[in-house]
Amino acid sequence: MLSTMQDVPLTVSRILTHGSTVHGKAQVITWTGEAEPHRRTFAEIGRRAAQLAHALRDTLDVGAAERVGTLMWNNSEHMEAYLGIPSMGAVLHTLNLRLPADQLAWIVNHAEDRVILVNGTLIPLLAPLLPQLPTVAHVVVVGPGDRVPLAGGHARVHDYEELLAGRPEHYDWPQVEERAAAALCYTSGTTGEPKGVVYSHRSLYLHSLQVNTAEAFALASRDIALPVVPMFHVNAWGLPHAAFMAGASLLMPDRFLQPAPLAEMIETIRPTIGAAVPTIWQGLLAELDAHKRDVACLHTVVIGGSACPPALMRGFEERHGIRVVHAWGMTETSPLGCVSHPPAGVSEEEEWAYRATQGRFPASVEARLIGPAGEELPWDGTAAGELEVRGPWIAGAYYGGAQGGALRPEDKFSPDGWLRTGDVGTITPDGYLTLTDRAKDVIKSGGEWISSVELENHLMAHPGVAEAAVVAVPDDKWGERPLATVVLTDGAALTYEELRAFLGERIARWQLPERWAVIPSVPKTSVGKFDKKVLRRQYADGELNVTLLG
Amino acid sequence: MLSTMQDVPLTVSRILTHGSTVHGKAQVITWTGEAEPHRRTFAEIGRRAAQLAHALRDTLDVGAAERVGTLMWNNSEHMEAYLGIPSMGAVLHTLNLRLPADQLAWIVNHAEDRVILVNGTLIPLLAPLLPQLPTVAHVVVVGPGDRVPLAGGHARVHDYEELLAGRPEHYDWPQVEERAAAALCYTSGTTGEPKGVVYSHRSLYLHSLQVNTAEAFALASRDIALPVVPMFHVNAWGLPHAAFMAGASLLMPDRFLQPAPLAEMIETIRPTIGAAVPTIWQGLLAELDAHKRDVACLHTVVIGGSACPPALMRGFEERHGIRVVHAWGMTETSPLGCVSHPPAGVSEEEEWAYRATQGRFPASVEARLIGPAGEELPWDGTAAGELEVRGPWIAGAYYGGAQGGALRPEDKFSPDGWLRTGDVGTITPDGYLTLTDRAKDVIKSGGEWISSVELENHLMAHPGVAEAAVVAVPDDKWGERPLATVVLTDGAALTYEELRAFLGERIARWQLPERWAVIPSVPKTSVGKFDKKVLRRQYADGELNVTLLG
Repeated sequence: MLSTMQDVPLTVSRILTHGSTVHGKAQVITWTGEAEPHRRTFAEIGRRAAQLAHALRDTLDVGAAERVGTLMWNNSEHMEAYLGIPSMGAVLHTLNLRLPADQLAWIVNHAEDRVILVNGTLIPLLAPLLPQLPTVAHVVVVGPGDRVPLAGGHARVHDYEELLAGRPEHYDWPQVEERAAAALCYTSGTTGEPKGVVYSHRSLYLHSLQVNTAEAFALASRDIALPVVPMFHVNAWGLPHAAFMAGASLLMPDRFLQPAPLAEMIETIRPTIGAAVPTIWQGLLAELDAHKRDVACLHTVVIGGSACPPALMRGFEERHGIRVVHAWGMTETSPLGCVSHPPAGVSEEEEWAYRATQGRFPASVEARLIGPAGEELPWDGTAAGELEVRGPWIAGAYYGGAQGGALRPEDKFSPDGWLRTGDVGTITPDGYLTLTDRAKDVIKSGGEWISSVELENHLMAHPGVAEAAVVAVPDDKWGERPLATVVLTDGAALTYEELRAFLGERIARWQLPERWAVIPSVPKTSVGKFDKKVLRRQYADGELNVTLLG
Repeated sequence: MLSTMQDVPLTVSRILTHGSTVHGKAQVITWTGEAEPHRRTFAEIGRRAAQLAHALRDTLDVGAAERVGTLMWNNSEHMEAYLGIPSMGAVLHTLNLRLPADQLAWIVNHAEDRVILVNGTLIPLLAPLLPQLPTVAHVVVVGPGDRVPLAGGHARVHDYEELLAGRPEHYDWPQVEERAAAALCYTSGTTGEPKGVVYSHRSLYLHSLQVNTAEAFALASRDIALPVVPMFHVNAWGLPHAAFMAGASLLMPDRFLQPAPLAEMIETIRPTIGAAVPTIWQGLLAELDAHKRDVACLHTVVIGGSACPPALMRGFEERHGIRVVHAWGMTETSPLGCVSHPPAGVSEEEEWAYRATQGRFPASVEARLIGPAGEELPWDGTAAGELEVRGPWIAGAYYGGAQGGALRPEDKFSPDGWLRTGDVGTITPDGYLTLTDRAKDVIKSGGEWISSVELENHLMAHPGVAEAAVVAVPDDKWGERPLATVVLTDGAALTYEELRAFLGERIARWQLPERWAVIPSVPKTSVGKFDKKVLRRQYADGELNVTLLG
């Protein structure tokens, strides 16, 4: 028996056409740092996206599935690129302007970008790289900026507004297959080469629908969304496409990501929902605590990218009446994986505990926990395993190269196609995920896992310990055992036995470390995370003064 | 360039597995008319849906794509059928228990239902038909009821609970193709044979996502949804599947659809959102006005099925604090077509005007208005045309027969595949649809359309007119012209010239009827709608006393 439903593909051009007609009056408001923000209606965005597509096809010779890079802040022209480039059948490639120059060049060359749209203020970043980017035939400058550094090379330089001027405001968008590539984003992995994740029209469309559900971020036409999270960071967590689909206006901060201008744009434009990483919100909270601002317009603040400190959640809610929603995801998950809305009918204390978890999965993200021996673990809130996910907006491979072949490193994908997230955690019977470790930081001891993060948290709760980092080290009998490295607070006089006894009251006996070392400070990565690779190497090289307890 | 996304189909079994695990604690609460309602968790529903699937496959020999009919009220067993039958690869066929017996038999035979699940209380409806249903090999009785009338025929009779007892509580759901048939519903057209609409797994999944968006009904895990609209009426407007996807509990009214029990179940179980046709809500409003009940739990009441009287919307909001949301759809649109959330930033008066419209389309419902000459009309709020829609949950054909061939009557589908809704209306520049007429009731006069409904409303606003019905009659010069038939109020002494002058102050001159007739009453259909077919025939047969004004 055949379905009698129409066979209509899920495409970005449908989001574009819908938003620019049914919600043509909604606006993309770009902060300019001046008295008046810049405003463009969705209807205008639709017309200009069509003009951009005409320019790319007719003048810059961009064909189907070819990559167009964007090195841009969050602003309305970036929105035009977001919608126009996939709609014409090309692929939007957002470039992370915070990457080291050599990584950025590697990524552009791997993706073989044909065109790069660059904000004028970011020319100093692009210009020195340009000679190393042979595939880039055209650079399109958006907004003011000194173009001289771009001149004289192999790439032709264009002005965005001049390129669009006079083009037709309608484009007969091709009927692309919904599984065709629409957007490309590289993970900036700390180890190995960056890996490209290619989103399809289908995945972006389904993800947008999910973002707009009440169990996720519930964007509606009455909302103004403020994506502080950059548009080069997993599509600003899907907010631009989702907002255009729902008819929610967008407040774009452009390059004004400091606490003071953020507070000012919130007070002036009155967005209803914002999204950013904890560092940004931490800065804003301090700003709000120091200078009274009317930010009650924000009913929801979405925090993701890394775990949110509970004090930050409580600070926003208790001092400023803003509800913080914790979310988890990654480049490979588009990124919406979990959202931490607490269940109904729980006490306030329980509610805070639920809100501190990574949250629950939507129907389109199927999850399982895999234990040390490869077995599937129960959702009992205690069994810890590596999280694997599956679904229509989850990566099943990486972009493999010039021929578009798929790359499936076995440490990233299970044989049956599930994504190995590299995160270790538990899931409660009612579906709430709590992440405790990165898989590479877990200690695999005799077929059981020991959480390095749990040990660290307990150690750091001791008044004599300033910092603690626990890493796995090889052990003949158990495979791996924990090595506890601690930084003592000034003047603390502590023995390892005392610390082990302190831990012994809090964790199972078999988890207690035998190997201990005091270190002057924990080595950190460039973004301030514990750099456990360094500790493991120092241990292997005998550079640590390790005491073995019997 | 290929997308690197996983190729995971959108299926009902995913909704089932998700709801019964992540939201396993949510409940389906069935009203029983007794002190205690019946409660089943989503986890139990999941296990019982698996048992049902085992029974259907192993004992009743139901194969892939075979139809299983349900003649049931809204209750938890119907929910098990809703999820289990499509998940196993069979097709759920909901039977409308309000249809005349001959139509019901015609539909079962056309669909070739192999099994019928019937509530015990509905056996008196099914038993007399059963001898005429040769394809039905099994009848499964759900709940108490006298089974004797079913005995002795060609169909074997089973008890639902006995059939499920002891079956495995897990079913290895097949990976069905997302475009495969999942559910079947027949339109009960007033003209011609009923027509079957076959929903796919994909269409049900996408529709559920849309129902849960903030711009639609925003179901979340904190909600309890009350679908008063029957589950045989376009899948209860998608609420059961959507609630299972979102983890929203369901309050099922079973056969207790009268105002008093509805008010009681709302007060007791405290649902947060309800959905029904205007007649039901009208009854509930009267009940609430007469007997004070605490129904403040309902934040939203969805009204659809036919246009909602503004007094009903205001009554709920102003007297009981319940927000009424107007929605439009039809069997062929799954049914979500439009939802009337007003835009932000309008006055209270404007807000009411927006809320009285049919509302705005979601991204997955593409709309166009087609004028009398087949031309596409602008969205200017005044140009009236027939509404045509397109999208992944919109029918592109009807179920054609035993071979499953598609049926595409040209009056129902445009040559390029859009659904002709048969509804005539306008769309504002900001995307709000207002329906004014059924296409068959519009008067096509000299290449322009005259709204019969508009003429009727103006005529009925005259104190001397009790009822008015306007129909199109053939005209040599203009093709069609309006014939105005009026029922005068008792004692009214009016001339046609007076009525025409009254109309002339309200509508354009060329729309004024020349043909007039006073009639004793407007002929009505069995459900109380104006039966214009009868008037047109009476005019053609010369049975009306028509006056022609110069």
